[in-house]
Amino acid sequence: MQRSGEFELIARCFTPIARDSAASLGLSDDAAIFSQSPGKSSVVTCDALVADVHFRAVDTPETIARKVLRVNLSDIAAMGAQPTGVVLACGYNRDLPEDWIVAFARAFGDDCAHWGVELYGGDTVSTNGPSFFSLTAIGEVVAKHALRRDAAKPGDVVAVTGTLGDAALGLAILQNRLALAQQHLSAFLTDRYLLPQPRLQTGMQASALGRRIAAMDISDGLAGDIRKIAEASNVGVILDQAAIPLSAAARAAVNQDETCWQQIMTGGDDYELLLCGPVDDIARLGNDVTVIGTVTDTPGEILMTSLDGKMAELAKGGFDHFSTS
Amino acid sequence: MQRSGEFELIARCFTPIARDSAASLGLSDDAAIFSQSPGKSSVVTCDALVADVHFRAVDTPETIARKVLRVNLSDIAAMGAQPTGVVLACGYNRDLPEDWIVAFARAFGDDCAHWGVELYGGDTVSTNGPSFFSLTAIGEVVAKHALRRDAAKPGDVVAVTGTLGDAALGLAILQNRLALAQQHLSAFLTDRYLLPQPRLQTGMQASALGRRIAAMDISDGLAGDIRKIAEASNVGVILDQAAIPLSAAARAAVNQDETCWQQIMTGGDDYELLLCGPVDDIARLGNDVTVIGTVTDTPGEILMTSLDGKMAELAKGGFDHFSTS
Repeated sequence: MQRSGEFELIARCFTPIARDSAASLGLSDDAAIFSQSPGKSSVVTCDALVADVHFRAVDTPETIARKVLRVNLSDIAAMGAQPTGVVLACGYNRDLPEDWIVAFARAFGDDCAHWGVELYGGDTVSTNGPSFFSLTAIGEVVAKHALRRDAAKPGDVVAVTGTLGDAALGLAILQNRLALAQQHLSAFLTDRYLLPQPRLQTGMQASALGRRIAAMDISDGLAGDIRKIAEASNVGVILDQAAIPLSAAARAAVNQDETCWQQIMTGGDDYELLLCGPVDDIARLGNDVTVIGTVTDTPGEILMTSLDGKMAELAKGGFDHFSTS
Repeated sequence: MQRSGEFELIARCFTPIARDSAASLGLSDDAAIFSQSPGKSSVVTCDALVADVHFRAVDTPETIARKVLRVNLSDIAAMGAQPTGVVLACGYNRDLPEDWIVAFARAFGDDCAHWGVELYGGDTVSTNGPSFFSLTAIGEVVAKHALRRDAAKPGDVVAVTGTLGDAALGLAILQNRLALAQQHLSAFLTDRYLLPQPRLQTGMQASALGRRIAAMDISDGLAGDIRKIAEASNVGVILDQAAIPLSAAARAAVNQDETCWQQIMTGGDDYELLLCGPVDDIARLGNDVTVIGTVTDTPGEILMTSLDGKMAELAKGGFDHFSTS
């Protein structure tokens, strides 16, 4: 297959995206140059996605492009920061047709515009193996108001944005491990898997309060991720299963098959925010935030009161890319 | 094969490297936080390297780790900036033994310390295909003194650091396309291929002059890269082949086989700096910088006076990752 050279691909597909970024220097220099706003610090995060590990190779280029951007913006949101720019390394499988790359780049550029982030730069390479995308996102925050994982304290409430488990159930539907009778509920869940919604607004709102709030995004499942915030803060947590917010579609799934709770608790890809803080501060974040538990003074102990009212240790089970078990 | 999980690998291999970086937050948060020095702006660059495209899969983990870091530091050098921190995404082939990863991480950490850069964060994933590494490097520079590609003007001299062609000849030796009788010359050339030396000192020195100097690093070969600086600056260039600085080893290679000039002119991986500026300013950069040509007012015309005194257009031929020709 004949595909355009690296430089032509960049000029054709990515330079137009960077046109609105003075920092990018038109993608024609060795590096981009950006300046922080007065009083702000920069946050920087990186997530790499590999075909058939983090997305399905059969997914559309548009879907993959948005996911690559959004999972990183979710980490920016989890710091309470405003995203400013991104640097994208693309490793295209050498058999991917050029049309695929063009569609990917166009969707990526549109989504950058949608979220108000500039394309600072990147790299474009070819691989014999699965395509991969590595994105570094940069944002700004008042450093002392960044939402860190280690800020939770006993007596805080534990809260989450949105609803949990939708993405894991959506993936189960796409993989024919789950079927719902109502098509619109299925579509809602698969959409939640394919198109993460980074909670930038809530993150920035929490940071703007200027209060002690711990946060992270739930990318590997509630059961595993709650443990990370507990360990970083040296506290314990008691969750209330009945309080976990479910969408109508997820509710239909657990009504049909209660083992769906397993996916809701341990499935990844929700990209909702997990927040810990004083109840009054959390309450100021609005109706999209639901209290699901409390922080205790027993380091590392993660308990959950289940639907039948019994309290038990919550197993880890967070998705881990390398584990073979 | 059983390998540790992602979180264990990061904790074991990369958290120790990040210990000296306050910005990294111990790699245990969603993002790193860094602040620019007063009066400075940030530069950011990204290069992705794929096994058997940008390095040989048989190379040692230590060699690959240093190369991943250094090719990016070279881009920071080409902006005249001081590197401050890096973000590393690793995509390990799933059959790589854990010992390989441990050795890679240790060498990467040592080289970060050597160059005085912090590990801000990153990502660790697994792939069925060739291993890949995507590094984003961040540095600082006084924005108006950044060395940009578009700053060359007619009448400037063209200059380079160090010697050219060594890396391409070293690769030819490793691939058994070239053999030199003297072992120490061969070793010099292969070392130049395996271990790039980012020209940070010269870059920062050029920026500190506070004068108009254009720069880029030579990663794709002089013939292709000189064209990029000429196009960005809308100028032409006349190079003098006789002035191109060669190492003793490269000199031995061309004496043995004059077609080695082809590799010297078009081979990549030198990571020397290509500079254009007023002759007096360039002279202040010291003995390691050699004038090899002049900038003309004929946009896009790249000429070279060859060893026999004839002047001709210099063919492009810069290495391009995708071209099949």
